[in-house]
Amino acid sequence: MCLMRQSHGTLELVNKGRGLYAITSEVVGWVGASTIADGLLTLFIQHTSASLLVQENYDPDVQADLERFFARLVKDGDPLFAHRMEGPDDMPAHVRAALTQTQLAIPLCRGQLVLGTWQGIYLYEHRFAPQRRKVALHLIGA
Amino acid sequence: MCLMRQSHGTLELVNKGRGLYAITSEVVGWVGASTIADGLLTLFIQHTSASLLVQENYDPDVQADLERFFARLVKDGDPLFAHRMEGPDDMPAHVRAALTQTQLAIPLCRGQLVLGTWQGIYLYEHRFAPQRRKVALHLIGA
Amino acid sequence: MCLMRQSHGTLELVNKGRGLYAITSEVVGWVGASTIADGLLTLFIQHTSASLLVQENYDPDVQADLERFFARLVKDGDPLFAHRMEGPDDMPAHVRAALTQTQLAIPLCRGQLVLGTWQGIYLYEHRFAPQRRKVALHLIGA
Repeated sequence: MCLMRQSHGTLELVNKGRGLYAITSEVVGWVGASTIADGLLTLFIQHTSASLLVQENYDPDVQADLERFFARLVKDGDPLFAHRMEGPDDMPAHVRAALTQTQLAIPLCRGQLVLGTWQGIYLYEHRFAPQRRKVALHLIGA
Repeated sequence: MCLMRQSHGTLELVNKGRGLYAITSEVVGWVGASTIADGLLTLFIQHTSASLLVQENYDPDVQADLERFFARLVKDGDPLFAHRMEGPDDMPAHVRAALTQTQLAIPLCRGQLVLGTWQGIYLYEHRFAPQRRKVALHLIGA
Repeated sequence: MCLMRQSHGTLELVNKGRGLYAITSEVVGWVGASTIADGLLTLFIQHTSASLLVQENYDPDVQADLERFFARLVKDGDPLFAHRMEGPDDMPAHVRAALTQTQLAIPLCRGQLVLGTWQGIYLYEHRFAPQRRKVALHLIGA
């Protein structure tokens, strides 16, 4: 048995506006730079108009279809919404974030995140304009 | 390196029925009363007709708009639903809970939860009537 | 204070196609077989067309109603979707997974998961055909 330890970090990610962005390699890189081989990784996005998802990483159509589904489900500029300070995509971005994830926990086993073969980690940007986003990372284990 | 330790607790929260209730200060207070400064906080709501959310904490319109969106998406009294034991808001409450979160994990770094500037922690009550809800808390770290 | 330790495992679950499957007893059995009594359990499903949920475990109508809701919200064979490699339920399965959970964290306190009285843990299969699914388990604690 080894003594447990933990590690904190932050990914700073610049994007080009609405859509899914694969961040698996950035996350795997950060985990690999730690000396912890077994434990629990937590990702926490520090925003309410972008979110996190584990999704299919093979066919890019999946990401495009997912975005089309959300665009139809949560209409930009919907008159239902009173909160429009930052434009027609402002409140829909908060709703999309509520329907997806602010945080993800992924076990780490023998140096590998337990992602399935076709699973990738994505940042889902919900605003139209390019954004700089921060994802806090925490790893606990041995 | 310090020895890891952990702490369990429960928040008991009385509300006035359907809507979002900020619980950030209760959560921060519980975390602050522990001697753990770095670690992982988990919140787990022990109900299936209320849920947890991280959402925008600045403009109250966001919370009202979110509720309006869910009320339109998951109609109370929808004849689609067979489960109506406790009224027209019974099954919609379970669906809303499925679409949001039962649990949240938030890293704690140097005594601070890594919440972004505009992020608050909310209990989202889905039943019409006032409820008493329990949120289990767990903190592991050093 | 006891030394922290951790445990990894995998549940292999065969199902009969689309619907909710209770996995509480399998999860509780795995946790009970460990020597950890206080800690944090994480479940992570290694697929993007099935997901995890905590839901009502009393009235089977709840599970049937939930499925009816999702079937209406995310139409199989919707012409909106370009990704149809594996049939009309392929892309809807990914969308349903995005709207529910890939992972769950549940605190363990004195040998008991902190589930509420009416809460059960479910694997939600989104494909029509029977599937074999893997859920990675991780427990950290003392």
